[in-house]
Amino acid sequence: MKRQITRKEFLASTTKTVVAASAGAFAMSVIPLSGGQLGKAGAIDKATAPWPWPYKTLDREDVRKRGHKAYFDGGCGYGAFNAILSALVDAVGEPYTSVPPQMLYFGGGGGAGWGTLCGALNGAAAAISLCVDRTNATAVISELFGWYTLAPFPSDISNDYATQHLFLVSKYDKALLQTVAGSTLCHASVTSWCTEAGFKAGSTERADRCARLTGDVAARSVELLNAFFGGQFKAAFVVPKSVTDCQGCHGSAIGNVQSGVKMDCQQCHKPFDHLY
Amino acid sequence: MKRQITRKEFLASTTKTVVAASAGAFAMSVIPLSGGQLGKAGAIDKATAPWPWPYKTLDREDVRKRGHKAYFDGGCGYGAFNAILSALVDAVGEPYTSVPPQMLYFGGGGGAGWGTLCGALNGAAAAISLCVDRTNATAVISELFGWYTLAPFPSDISNDYATQHLFLVSKYDKALLQTVAGSTLCHASVTSWCTEAGFKAGSTERADRCARLTGDVAARSVELLNAFFGGQFKAAFVVPKSVTDCQGCHGSAIGNVQSGVKMDCQQCHKPFDHLY
Repeated sequence: MKRQITRKEFLASTTKTVVAASAGAFAMSVIPLSGGQLGKAGAIDKATAPWPWPYKTLDREDVRKRGHKAYFDGGCGYGAFNAILSALVDAVGEPYTSVPPQMLYFGGGGGAGWGTLCGALNGAAAAISLCVDRTNATAVISELFGWYTLAPFPSDISNDYATQHLFLVSKYDKALLQTVAGSTLCHASVTSWCTEAGFKAGSTERADRCARLTGDVAARSVELLNAFFGGQFKAAFVVPKSVTDCQGCHGSAIGNVQSGVKMDCQQCHKPFDHLY
Repeated sequence: MKRQITRKEFLASTTKTVVAASAGAFAMSVIPLSGGQLGKAGAIDKATAPWPWPYKTLDREDVRKRGHKAYFDGGCGYGAFNAILSALVDAVGEPYTSVPPQMLYFGGGGGAGWGTLCGALNGAAAAISLCVDRTNATAVISELFGWYTLAPFPSDISNDYATQHLFLVSKYDKALLQTVAGSTLCHASVTSWCTEAGFKAGSTERADRCARLTGDVAARSVELLNAFFGGQFKAAFVVPKSVTDCQGCHGSAIGNVQSGVKMDCQQCHKPFDHLY
């Protein structure tokens, strides 16, 4: 944490991940001990790995399955976070082992159940942020968010895994209706699906829908990460006209909406209702 | 991460934090080295600290100032996360040193700028989740969220710090208009403040408003954490009638809204418009 490494240094480091991981382990292990005295803060400072952390190409479908399973272990926030984190632990090892995946339990149900940011997005964004610098992480995460608003969930792949019993755990083995949330909010995503699919929010079917979605979000994150570290990332999400129309005034002349806000205005504000 | 410690074990451990921290450092330092061979995964597994991590009573006002300063270093998500994390690093040390505070950069502006969950809440929730078990963290974080929806931001204390130049950094030294967001969403919080205060979202005043809010959220989190670990935590937030009225049908008979959702329905849905 002493300094941020450049992207060039970072990319170079990912080509020799195993060596770097061993070196990291060595740095952690050779803290000098003098007669049983341990310099607490000093010793630990030396063990802290420089951020962002090394990345190694991950298997998208393996991570999708991890996400689906981890949802049942700890909800959507934990599910997406642990899907990517545990894959990085297996591929890279230290320093990913030092982050407790439980820290994203709170993301579940849109943040302690409040229905705000989809926990799968929150967990995936946190994992992405371990290995991508701030500027690029913003671009990658924004692309993930944009994709989410337009994607039919659960994906065809996840529906197929379920019907073919290819997931690591199975709670429901039928294909589920796909809906497009048009939003990054848990409440909008879950409620629109429940309404259209005819299942209650407390049902097994809804839980498996969110488990499949968690896998899908983790898998898409890995697709974006693999592209980014392979030099192939290109943002494709186009902010919808319903947003750019409103931001034309509210983002500039009126100026009371932050320019980065990309939630579909009309999901909450009827056209021209000018609630704010 | 091998097992979850009980709350009793956890509380006991916080009474001897320095000893525990030293023991942790020792565990990290005595990984056996055999002829230069380093067992990568095995060695690191042994160094992983059991979760949740030890807590030590923090100084609320110190953390408020850290949050205000850290906002200018990395936005609201990083600001609240690092305010609490850095205080825990100073008070407890390892294992908090192993988490990069940069992983919450993405929380800024409601998640990569999208305007969803307030980044200060996201960052604070992530920090709380390092040291509180899942069930209790949900209660503490939900209380924090509820408090946020009703609190006038920036607080009187933060306004006083600004006018008296008591913050660690000063970007604007006048008191700022206080508004109550009625929401945990960044967009609702920022836009309602901008509209009422008459400052643009891109202004220095708005930035300092969010910096003060970041300190306020971090400070409130510490107040709740100190209460929880002191056995004094009691949830006080009452879900508003506008939510319980709607959830009366949507949370049960209709069942298309998750029971935990506590966002004020009428901020987006006009009464009886039945958008969903």
